[in-house]
Amino acid sequence: MNKIYIIGVGLIGGSIALDIKSNNKHAKVFGIDTNDSHLDDALKLNVIDEKASYGDLKEADLVVLSIPVDKAVLELPKVLDAISDRALVIDVGSTKDPVCKAIENHKMRRNFLATHPIAGTEFSGPKAAIHGLFQKKTNIICEVEKTTFKLQEKALQLFSDLGMRIRYMNPEAHDKHIAYVSHLSHISSFMLGKTVIEKEKNERDIFDMAGSGFESTVRLAKSSPAMWTPIFKQNRENVIETLDEYINNLKQFKALMESNDFDEIYKEMQSTNHIKDILNGIA
Amino acid sequence: MNKIYIIGVGLIGGSIALDIKSNNKHAKVFGIDTNDSHLDDALKLNVIDEKASYGDLKEADLVVLSIPVDKAVLELPKVLDAISDRALVIDVGSTKDPVCKAIENHKMRRNFLATHPIAGTEFSGPKAAIHGLFQKKTNIICEVEKTTFKLQEKALQLFSDLGMRIRYMNPEAHDKHIAYVSHLSHISSFMLGKTVIEKEKNERDIFDMAGSGFESTVRLAKSSPAMWTPIFKQNRENVIETLDEYINNLKQFKALMESNDFDEIYKEMQSTNHIKDILNGIA
Repeated sequence: MNKIYIIGVGLIGGSIALDIKSNNKHAKVFGIDTNDSHLDDALKLNVIDEKASYGDLKEADLVVLSIPVDKAVLELPKVLDAISDRALVIDVGSTKDPVCKAIENHKMRRNFLATHPIAGTEFSGPKAAIHGLFQKKTNIICEVEKTTFKLQEKALQLFSDLGMRIRYMNPEAHDKHIAYVSHLSHISSFMLGKTVIEKEKNERDIFDMAGSGFESTVRLAKSSPAMWTPIFKQNRENVIETLDEYINNLKQFKALMESNDFDEIYKEMQSTNHIKDILNGIA
Repeated sequence: MNKIYIIGVGLIGGSIALDIKSNNKHAKVFGIDTNDSHLDDALKLNVIDEKASYGDLKEADLVVLSIPVDKAVLELPKVLDAISDRALVIDVGSTKDPVCKAIENHKMRRNFLATHPIAGTEFSGPKAAIHGLFQKKTNIICEVEKTTFKLQEKALQLFSDLGMRIRYMNPEAHDKHIAYVSHLSHISSFMLGKTVIEKEKNERDIFDMAGSGFESTVRLAKSSPAMWTPIFKQNRENVIETLDEYINNLKQFKALMESNDFDEIYKEMQSTNHIKDILNGIA
């Protein structure tokens, strides 16, 4: 796969481009983006080699669609309209059911592979792209059986070159579970940031009191609203369910505090402590 | 200050001991702990030089009280009973009003300085003690005017040697603000961990889907219940207030999701994004 088209040259698309370029000296990476300054930045940073447009996609061996999930469901059919039969198209979005549904009846469905690389940082744009972002990270692949076998093989080789391990899952299960282990964390972090900023808005010195624990829990509140709003919209029902359960657990904790039941609070924390073991191995 | 007594040889007390020993070759560090295996570990790891008991405190130049805050209010009066007039006693707890009240009328009040080093990790015990833990961290000092001037000077020299910067605050203000920038983060993290573990208890593979974002938001759920239960108990009213506000913000976010008001959700996240700037400088 020598002709690579990255649609959406941001953190994820840009980081894939960087690794492909260092793994394959024959690869030429083209960038497509509605944001011209991102394309210019990507060129300057050698994240891409050339700008391109949808008219060029017929030349592509690989197309990486790395744009917000609301845009992805609109653009993916156009991408599949524009490619040749040899092209592999992958997306990298944080919701999988809507994108799979959007092209389920497209005549080029077998050229598409739905993926979700569990990798990233709280930063965005081509300047956030880094080498090795995907090393030892999980890539979740959905509906693998709907992709041509030969293109599956190419995709797996690509992910292996990026250093990723693979998990297969159906789109509904992906969207349900990812709400718990990713989407809820983002809301929890944004609302924690909001709560503290509201309270302390007139006392900026207070943030001198914040330590690495606070920083860790609000890190995700730096994330891009343009990326995350459509994720919450597309995964609305699952996210509302996780929020309900989270809010209920917080209310129960508060009730224990109000009734001075600190023995039970101790037990609550102790029974959650084994998250240590569960998380063993997460970078 | 050559004779140092650490009461509670854990993460904080042990890390203070390590730094004092490398800064001052004449220092001899004695450990006092109700947990004998912690004392043995601390000896083996050279965190302390000798075991000691309260009867020895009359020899002390410096006593560091680094035990859970419920124990601190009980032990501090006994420590002040046991020391000589030249000793400086500091505590390092995450609540300051109860400990200050506990000794406000003690005849040795002027030998005590209430401090809260904003430093730590999610680990505990002497094995968690590390060199340099306090470098560039903030130390909050309460009621500085109630400590003998000469001992204030010694304390400031110690904190300067540890690499800390100083903020002065009254105990009530400390406890109110620290509820927002520390205690709430811990509850948020514990309840997030609980929510996900409850949901996914039969599907441990799901944690393969968890990325560094999830890890970051639940890191504090590894913290010690024995340390945190008494903190929540002592700072009960402030913590309940922060929980109320946090829960209300989460409910409001959920209501926006339910009414499909994603424009407002975008704005919510955007207006919290400047936590980036606020946190600049936090390690």
